[in-house]
Amino acid sequence: MRYLLLTTYDGTCFSGWQRQPGKRTVQSVMEEAAREIFGSDVRLTASGRTDAGVHALGQVVGLDVATGIPPEKLSFCFNRLLPPDVKVRESAVAPEGLDPSRSVKQKTYLYRAYHSPCEQPLFGRFAARLSAEPDLFRMREAGKLLLGEHDFAAFRSAGFSSKTSVRTILSLTVEAAEREWGKEYSVSVTGNGFLYNMVRILAGELFAVGCGKEERISRALETGARSELAKTMPPCGLVLMKVDYGVPVFGAKER
Amino acid sequence: MRYLLLTTYDGTCFSGWQRQPGKRTVQSVMEEAAREIFGSDVRLTASGRTDAGVHALGQVVGLDVATGIPPEKLSFCFNRLLPPDVKVRESAVAPEGLDPSRSVKQKTYLYRAYHSPCEQPLFGRFAARLSAEPDLFRMREAGKLLLGEHDFAAFRSAGFSSKTSVRTILSLTVEAAEREWGKEYSVSVTGNGFLYNMVRILAGELFAVGCGKEERISRALETGARSELAKTMPPCGLVLMKVDYGVPVFGAKER
Repeated sequence: MRYLLLTTYDGTCFSGWQRQPGKRTVQSVMEEAAREIFGSDVRLTASGRTDAGVHALGQVVGLDVATGIPPEKLSFCFNRLLPPDVKVRESAVAPEGLDPSRSVKQKTYLYRAYHSPCEQPLFGRFAARLSAEPDLFRMREAGKLLLGEHDFAAFRSAGFSSKTSVRTILSLTVEAAEREWGKEYSVSVTGNGFLYNMVRILAGELFAVGCGKEERISRALETGARSELAKTMPPCGLVLMKVDYGVPVFGAKER
Repeated sequence: MRYLLLTTYDGTCFSGWQRQPGKRTVQSVMEEAAREIFGSDVRLTASGRTDAGVHALGQVVGLDVATGIPPEKLSFCFNRLLPPDVKVRESAVAPEGLDPSRSVKQKTYLYRAYHSPCEQPLFGRFAARLSAEPDLFRMREAGKLLLGEHDFAAFRSAGFSSKTSVRTILSLTVEAAEREWGKEYSVSVTGNGFLYNMVRILAGELFAVGCGKEERISRALETGARSELAKTMPPCGLVLMKVDYGVPVFGAKER
């Protein structure tokens, strides 16, 4: 039987999702809990890797195991054993034939940043600091250029190869909010898939354009040259918000 | 010359404000930075102590020192040396005769909590988890009983003695917001002063009333018995938001 775990983590103290020798990763911490629950080694598969320092609110993790534990109770079994920085929000039986990684239809990421006269201890764990105050209108205009199907070769870091760099961005919104200590910005992006570091590069370019840099997105989409674009934003601002399989997987709390 | 530092910290890894042998406290970390900046021991005074685990967005810290550094540049000098979990938002010369602790006219605290099927790694660092979902209307009605001048003897933990336990609560608001993972609650309270643990006891009682407990505030204000009230909430949900001296101290960013 295949089960799915709706998983949230504070990525600060993890070396990303994937198991690596000698490193604290989300996969290794969760597989340790699984071993304790089921009494044997159980392999966990995520909807996709997240990098060191990247957070998740709605990562989906799958496991194949034979157990008498009711599916909805699995979350409690994991949460009793997991450390405070990773928790299972909900657990369920996987729909027939669903593969946690290959069946993904859409993913939504949030990138958060802020502008302020100093680093913000109460906010900086989950957001990157900007050196200038970006213009929302310019960011939104530039964001429109990314919508739809494009070859996003320029929006990819070296290191992971996918067969194709064509992806479709289904929605992209930019928001800002005034805070006591400065201004907070968020870029929310939904797509049918993302290349390695794509959201962090894309957010970096939008912030750069917002801060007055000439818009280089159209050209980068044509040339595919990473060097056309701003630098990759730090991982702390990134949250994997939602994984969509085109079928209902979890209950009310998924939303 | 007396200077004031508008200070923010994530209290998670501090044993509170006050210097204690062998403990990492905000005062000791900031006094270390001060020693490096001024080349001699400088005593720092806060508007008041905060407990272990309690956060601050607007703590005010004073120091008496002779220096050629322009007052508004002091914040940069500190921030270069301070760790990421404590920063100085702004620095200024203190108004004539202002004592960082004794001249306080009002303070504002925020207490944050949430209700959710599991612990929330992306939110729980700065909020306490509730075991049930409180009713906002009941919390607000109970909150009205606390407004004005009262003897808050029942809303004080043993350990610190103040001459009088009479305090005035000037405003108290309760808010809630829906999140993807559950519901977030906040209690914001402004008063002319607070007893030891007063905000954490007061918030705990409001949440208890909201979750269906019979209202015991009126009786507790009469009897002064701590035992009438719900348990003290954990420190992680508490933030010292603002210290008001009745005169402008910092610039625009203070708000």
